[in-house]
Amino acid sequence: MKKNICITLGDPNGLGPELVCRLLSERKPERAFLMIGPESGLEYHLDRLGLEKFYTVLEDPEQVVDAAPGYYLYSPEVLHDFELKIGEADPEGGRCAGESMEVAMDLLNRKILAGLVTCPLHKAMLQLAGFDFPGHTEFLATRSGVGRENVCMHLGGPKLKVSLVTTHPRFVDIPGLITKDRILRCIELTDGLVKSLGLDKPIAVCGLNPHAGESGRIGDEEIKVIEPAIEEARARGFDVQGSIPGDTVFYFAAQGEFSAVLAMYHDQGLAPLKLLHFSEAVNITLGLPFPRTSPDHGTGYDITGTGKASLDSFEAAMDCAEMMVDNDG
Amino acid sequence: MKKNICITLGDPNGLGPELVCRLLSERKPERAFLMIGPESGLEYHLDRLGLEKFYTVLEDPEQVVDAAPGYYLYSPEVLHDFELKIGEADPEGGRCAGESMEVAMDLLNRKILAGLVTCPLHKAMLQLAGFDFPGHTEFLATRSGVGRENVCMHLGGPKLKVSLVTTHPRFVDIPGLITKDRILRCIELTDGLVKSLGLDKPIAVCGLNPHAGESGRIGDEEIKVIEPAIEEARARGFDVQGSIPGDTVFYFAAQGEFSAVLAMYHDQGLAPLKLLHFSEAVNITLGLPFPRTSPDHGTGYDITGTGKASLDSFEAAMDCAEMMVDNDG
Repeated sequence: MKKNICITLGDPNGLGPELVCRLLSERKPERAFLMIGPESGLEYHLDRLGLEKFYTVLEDPEQVVDAAPGYYLYSPEVLHDFELKIGEADPEGGRCAGESMEVAMDLLNRKILAGLVTCPLHKAMLQLAGFDFPGHTEFLATRSGVGRENVCMHLGGPKLKVSLVTTHPRFVDIPGLITKDRILRCIELTDGLVKSLGLDKPIAVCGLNPHAGESGRIGDEEIKVIEPAIEEARARGFDVQGSIPGDTVFYFAAQGEFSAVLAMYHDQGLAPLKLLHFSEAVNITLGLPFPRTSPDHGTGYDITGTGKASLDSFEAAMDCAEMMVDNDG
Repeated sequence: MKKNICITLGDPNGLGPELVCRLLSERKPERAFLMIGPESGLEYHLDRLGLEKFYTVLEDPEQVVDAAPGYYLYSPEVLHDFELKIGEADPEGGRCAGESMEVAMDLLNRKILAGLVTCPLHKAMLQLAGFDFPGHTEFLATRSGVGRENVCMHLGGPKLKVSLVTTHPRFVDIPGLITKDRILRCIELTDGLVKSLGLDKPIAVCGLNPHAGESGRIGDEEIKVIEPAIEEARARGFDVQGSIPGDTVFYFAAQGEFSAVLAMYHDQGLAPLKLLHFSEAVNITLGLPFPRTSPDHGTGYDITGTGKASLDSFEAAMDCAEMMVDNDG
């Protein structure tokens, strides 16, 4: 029997429930999927779109274990008083996202579910609701017990796949967060991903400074930190190249010369990734005890309920989660 | 009569003379172009490629003032002993590049020539030869008397045009170099360029931190420096938007929503630019007393003499310089 997957609806005032209704009502399930969140979010879009209810409500989420292939919904009791405000940034939406994640993490930690697709949440609303995490990735790393330093954010599209050594720190804090151990961990995790995808080109590692430091003439992080990490990774058998200047490496990666790029920080990696794959990339958290994907966009409050949002990234996140769960152990 | 343009051959051991021979022997001149550098660089490629000599040697560079449309070469006496080492990183190549630039700047400062196209030099070779400049841009800013803080590096391709607030500092020094005055100067210079190109969409200004700081949650440079600069630019009548997250702005710019993007630092702007326009972008120094362009690539020692180098970027640099000289004053 196929392993089951959890889908958190995220902030119900944002795009999550709309994407779920539009995609899943048309997508034949080959396993049980357990959605977690308030039912009102789904009902709103089913009604507006004239769609049939495509899921079964479970009173106890553990019922999913023996469930036939299909879509299921579990609404935690703590969310029964939730009041939908479509398209609004409201702390209640952040509370829904956070509480749904708590339930999901409990089920995943207990192996009742094997993988996770998360719909978008709004970070500020999450924090206003009392969940002290910068975003999903840190929430997952903490609640799974893995720790933030051991997971790696990865965004993958058809032509470019990018892992990040650092995610959302202040710009001034970036250099201090780039350590040899952290780079090695990200290489190891990225290598696992690209191998699972059947890719066999090297992983490219970016420099930090302009032109990757020009042999030390512009900063020394390449010489002191990045290149020693690359050398050690090679010694451990990983196929890695670098450090490569961040302004040229993505062109060569998109041409197929590299299976993935390890960028040192957010904009270095994601400016080229989103230029090429704006609405089709999948966000993957590497290093968790289970596969986790999400669409590569935010809550999109301004277009929620209009039907304008592309389904591509959410569909890719679903496909990717299924593939990873099936490959996993 | 059309205004005349200077072409420095750069490092003769690199791609400059090859590109010049391949392109200009086929390109009909509509004005006088004065090339500066050692003749041996050109002779090598003419011979190898079986091309006719397409230029006239001038003993005195000022003869270009009254010259008919055509290509001319001036070899400064100090370079007569230059020994060509094709494809080699040699300080003598840096000396050629530096001495040629000194002659060019003298002629440009005296208005004997109206614009400049520079062929690639190797920064380390330039410095080994005793010229204490990180690259062409700083050389030009200093020798023209304009000062480094008043020029702005811009790279333009058909779909993306990117100006840089900072160019080649160490990563850790970037935040300290981003000031309100500097951003305003770059907006003003970029605005002048896009208007001269007939573009009428806003200029997008990037944030520095991930997600442009998320309203101050991730760093405060956007609130303290970048957004006040944007407000003042608007008050002065410039059509500017921002701060916009560096990971998404280039997608929208490439879709035509912005005439140009002002990036805060090298990799933020040039990773997306080079992904889209690897061999076709033109490097323009904004803010000099004369138009200056160059191809957007280095000396390419590894492919010099093989004929493999693309002519696209050099050709675009020539076209752009001619257009800018004709629009200038």
